[in-house]
Amino acid sequence: MQADTKAILNRLRRIEGQVRGLQRMVDEDAYCIDILTQVAAVQTALENVAVEVLDGHVRGCVADAVAGGEDGDAKLDELMAAVRRFTKAR
Amino acid sequence: MQADTKAILNRLRRIEGQVRGLQRMVDEDAYCIDILTQVAAVQTALENVAVEVLDGHVRGCVADAVAGGEDGDAKLDELMAAVRRFTKAR
Amino acid sequence: MQADTKAILNRLRRIEGQVRGLQRMVDEDAYCIDILTQVAAVQTALENVAVEVLDGHVRGCVADAVAGGEDGDAKLDELMAAVRRFTKAR
Amino acid sequence: MQADTKAILNRLRRIEGQVRGLQRMVDEDAYCIDILTQVAAVQTALENVAVEVLDGHVRGCVADAVAGGEDGDAKLDELMAAVRRFTKAR
Repeated sequence: MQADTKAILNRLRRIEGQVRGLQRMVDEDAYCIDILTQVAAVQTALENVAVEVLDGHVRGCVADAVAGGEDGDAKLDELMAAVRRFTKAR
Repeated sequence: MQADTKAILNRLRRIEGQVRGLQRMVDEDAYCIDILTQVAAVQTALENVAVEVLDGHVRGCVADAVAGGEDGDAKLDELMAAVRRFTKAR
Repeated sequence: MQADTKAILNRLRRIEGQVRGLQRMVDEDAYCIDILTQVAAVQTALENVAVEVLDGHVRGCVADAVAGGEDGDAKLDELMAAVRRFTKAR
Repeated sequence: MQADTKAILNRLRRIEGQVRGLQRMVDEDAYCIDILTQVAAVQTALENVAVEVLDGHVRGCVADAVAGGEDGDAKLDELMAAVRRFTKAR
């Protein structure tokens, strides 16, 4: 789990660098299409972070609650609410 | 669960009708923006189906496997692979 | 343009078949993960339709309005409103 | 246009702050669901940036090229390629 945390932190630091790079591009009036390409790259990187965090949560917290027979349903409600926030579904 | 199946089937029948409506619009040379608005509506409807199927799967199959201590990890691997297919993440 | 219309109609007919296939899967109680995989396939197919319709619209209607100097701004407003509907952005 | 650039830069600075906030949350072992909620907020903020950049590009660069009768097709090809990068469509 600590290895996971470190990997996620590294991804987030790289994303921070990418966002700063975007600011530079906008500031220096870079070509719009190049800016859009870079925004798309950051979005994919963020989606990777989301999937990794979700993965750790499902295998850790949710699986423990379900296996322990306690809080399982509440954890599943919460999980599905989080999944919904990543879609346009309601 | 059977109530859920019925609700999902009803949603899919409505989606089929919407897709046929789209064919009519294209065939009758409807205005592109109206077609796009309708495509977006079908996409949201499909996303709702996906979330409902996922919800039933997580609360049924996955929760049972995890609580039963059998197959739990395999079910979680499979679940996360399905979630990834709904993102652009890799 | 008529070749495009035909191609889009063919895509929509295939999507209709996929949606009917989904109904069958749900009706026959297929495995949830297989259903989800199929829903994801239909979503990608629909996104392809949206991009093709948008492509035709931008190159036809919008380009004509902008080049003709008439209605150009209104067409661009309308176009960007349609693009926004395909994102979660506001 | 310069007002737009400033607004986009401000959005990107806020996003950089949100990404640093995410690092802190991960570092301090915040609850996964709270992290996911925050990731979803950053994704929406990035999507808003993308739509704003696209908007400026379409109204500026693309409209000029199309109206000028020069490079119009090349600009439209490039634009549609950028739109495709924001979808899973191929």
